Amino acid sequence: MTDDLIVRVRVDLSYDGAGFSGWAAQPGRRTVEGVLSETLGRVLRLPEPVRLTVAGRTDSGVHARGQVAHADLAADAWAAHADAALRRLSRALPPDLRVRSIGPAPVGFDARFSALWRRYAYRICDDPARADPLRRHDTLWHPRGLDLAAMNEAAALLLDEHDFAAFCRKREGATTVRALRTLEWERDADGVAVGRVVADAFCHNMVRALVGALLPVGEGVRPASWPAEVLAAEVRNPAVGVVPPHGLSLEEVRYPDHGLLAARAVLTRRVRVEGDA
Amino acid sequence: MTDDLIVRVRVDLSYDGAGFSGWAAQPGRRTVEGVLSETLGRVLRLPEPVRLTVAGRTDSGVHARGQVAHADLAADAWAAHADAALRRLSRALPPDLRVRSIGPAPVGFDARFSALWRRYAYRICDDPARADPLRRHDTLWHPRGLDLAAMNEAAALLLDEHDFAAFCRKREGATTVRALRTLEWERDADGVAVGRVVADAFCHNMVRALVGALLPVGEGVRPASWPAEVLAAEVRNPAVGVVPPHGLSLEEVRYPDHGLLAARAVLTRRVRVEGDA
Repeated sequence: MTDDLIVRVRVDLSYDGAGFSGWAAQPGRRTVEGVLSETLGRVLRLPEPVRLTVAGRTDSGVHARGQVAHADLAADAWAAHADAALRRLSRALPPDLRVRSIGPAPVGFDARFSALWRRYAYRICDDPARADPLRRHDTLWHPRGLDLAAMNEAAALLLDEHDFAAFCRKREGATTVRALRTLEWERDADGVAVGRVVADAFCHNMVRALVGALLPVGEGVRPASWPAEVLAAEVRNPAVGVVPPHGLSLEEVRYPDHGLLAARAVLTRRVRVEGDA
Repeated sequence: MTDDLIVRVRVDLSYDGAGFSGWAAQPGRRTVEGVLSETLGRVLRLPEPVRLTVAGRTDSGVHARGQVAHADLAADAWAAHADAALRRLSRALPPDLRVRSIGPAPVGFDARFSALWRRYAYRICDDPARADPLRRHDTLWHPRGLDLAAMNEAAALLLDEHDFAAFCRKREGATTVRALRTLEWERDADGVAVGRVVADAFCHNMVRALVGALLPVGEGVRPASWPAEVLAAEVRNPAVGVVPPHGLSLEEVRYPDHGLLAARAVLTRRVRVEGDA
């Protein structure tokens, strides 16, 4: 009688977003969800693609090194193929999509609603002499040098809970209130400016619009107070550019300790609505 | 009367080798030399492509982050466009080929013959769970874990001056005696095994054959003494695999201080012959 039992499986994955029309399955498009759900069904010998719930619904061209999803599977099907699943996925998936681990999730786990926060990174090379052709797929090449101190000054004014409507593509009925925990820039060993952005969750386009608002500050074209003024207006500002997707990567999704997973999911579900992550 | 004056210009460049049939110009093929020499001629408004001499003639698919070349240019043509050259090259070159700097070389400089040593890096991810799709273009994915300590033990036995004929594609009349200064493996912050290989110069295929000889040691299939035995035989050994080019990158070329450049070039030219680097 195991046929009726369901096991929730957590999947950790990475992808190069260049070849995907974003996460969400769309008819006739190559999407991360589409490829993973079809391959997972095949590898587990299931009659149909696996339904997935994801932590961060990345846009077209956005990468992920730390994406998390879950799927509810028939316990007997999972038990029959659990040991071989990771190895088979490694062979069956295309090179631009890798599953890092797959296994039963703790009780109460929900890839989307249990998440405490998501961390994204945005990479910008602002010195043409240091542009690395081998990293051009995940780094924006910006022709003018950026003052990261000015960008960090501006970024600090955006932290904490606000209505980020000014930086989001609005969806009917969905809240744009988010808690921005971290927004800071640092140069890595190669001199690349890396923006670290952490929030409980993000609305659509939010990270790329935040970076877009900080760029003119880094260039000295706008004062450090400008992004906070845009935020305060709570309406989309056409002066804010949305930076290209290929510099952006979802790096990490953090969940609470096992005992608190279910409580977190209930709480999150109450304050947010379907369609955002 | 500046028309007869020649200035030697040093060019530092990086490229993603995937889209090039190696460095050396070949009719009908896209090569680094071909693209750079044509673009340089155009950017400097010269009547024809610029002749280049390079430090490391990389094979098809091999990358470079620290390649160096030189060109001898009419001094007046250079003077007319020197200030704009780097900016124009940045616009005119394709994204997989970047010039990091360009300018007059010190007296006695020869990109090939003045070089003291070349440093290559070979990247291997030997843990499928850590494969980063965004680095798949410059990292070999190896399905089994490697024992780097064993590889380093084997590598140490290959150091110093030897006839590396066992690891080279032989060319008539060219010496295969090389001085291997460094051959060692280390894991980077992401767990990727990175081989650091330094020699005065390399013969054709040499780095990839050295790595190919160390892999079975890392897998425990051959003893640490095996690569040294292969070396001692001084003939090409078919048991040595040549690893794929996309894990390999020319990272750095080191030259002596200005005063010693010409002396170094004379010395090098005497012991090596045309066709190697």
